[in-house]
Amino acid sequence: MEFSLSRTVSMLERTPAVLTALLAELDDQLTHHNYGEGTWSAYEVVGHLLIGEYDDWIPRLRIILDQGTARPFDPFPHDATISPVSGRSLDDLLEEFAGARAGNLDILAAMHLTDAHWTLRGVHPGLGEVTLAQLLAAWATHDVHHVRQVCRAVAHQSRELVGPWRNYINTLPRE
Amino acid sequence: MEFSLSRTVSMLERTPAVLTALLAELDDQLTHHNYGEGTWSAYEVVGHLLIGEYDDWIPRLRIILDQGTARPFDPFPHDATISPVSGRSLDDLLEEFAGARAGNLDILAAMHLTDAHWTLRGVHPGLGEVTLAQLLAAWATHDVHHVRQVCRAVAHQSRELVGPWRNYINTLPRE
Repeated sequence: MEFSLSRTVSMLERTPAVLTALLAELDDQLTHHNYGEGTWSAYEVVGHLLIGEYDDWIPRLRIILDQGTARPFDPFPHDATISPVSGRSLDDLLEEFAGARAGNLDILAAMHLTDAHWTLRGVHPGLGEVTLAQLLAAWATHDVHHVRQVCRAVAHQSRELVGPWRNYINTLPRE
Repeated sequence: MEFSLSRTVSMLERTPAVLTALLAELDDQLTHHNYGEGTWSAYEVVGHLLIGEYDDWIPRLRIILDQGTARPFDPFPHDATISPVSGRSLDDLLEEFAGARAGNLDILAAMHLTDAHWTLRGVHPGLGEVTLAQLLAAWATHDVHHVRQVCRAVAHQSRELVGPWRNYINTLPRE
């Protein structure tokens, strides 16, 4: 599959609606619990995506455009997230994420990127040289990966309730 | 976590919106390809969920209410799906799924189920005795499981485009 900016933007712009449809006003018992030690709850996944809107993708895109490989990206911790200890509701995080994403897509549009930009390079602190197209594709795919993780965390909370179906629904851990 | 009908319905009623937000008008290159031999594309997952609305959950609920354990559920094939060979667009399937789900939630509401119903039993052809509450919880959890599968199938199509990020996004297969 060839890189396509419009396809990538189509993925990026739908994520807030996906997360809101999945999680808004859902019982905290489903959204505030993780799926095992060292894993995230749905709430924490949304917190991670929100921080990424500020500190990860767009700042790195700007570094590629402004400085190329002359200056590596700032590290972005894999485990950056927001905890319910913040006192913020999940619905509030979802709303902020939707606004931040819309703002970032406006910034992206204003860059007027074209085919000539796809092969521009930057330096990822852990992965080495990456292209601008790879960064955009990774941003969109990272979204889908984390929506998948939200599903796992939500489903996990019903692992006892489904009884024998636990052996058929392989998102759930075996007994 | 205790079984709750309202929580279960809250999960079931949001799935059409989740799938529509994820998939409507998305590039066929993302929705019509699977993630490996013997797996489903996003399209086929939606086809599976649609068939389940007609043949799986509500018919089984009715058997529990009408006949209890006297008559096992009809088998529902795990691999029941609709293929793009049908000629139908994914957006058309999504729309039909939304209508079928809404209709089934109307049927469920009209059953006026209460706590006394949760422990009623039926016989699953593969799993043996199950309760009505387990069936409802499994219906909702099966949704989330398959939304997760949709994410995997969609993400998989960008496995080459993300370049080195493939090693960070563990929804994708390692190279």
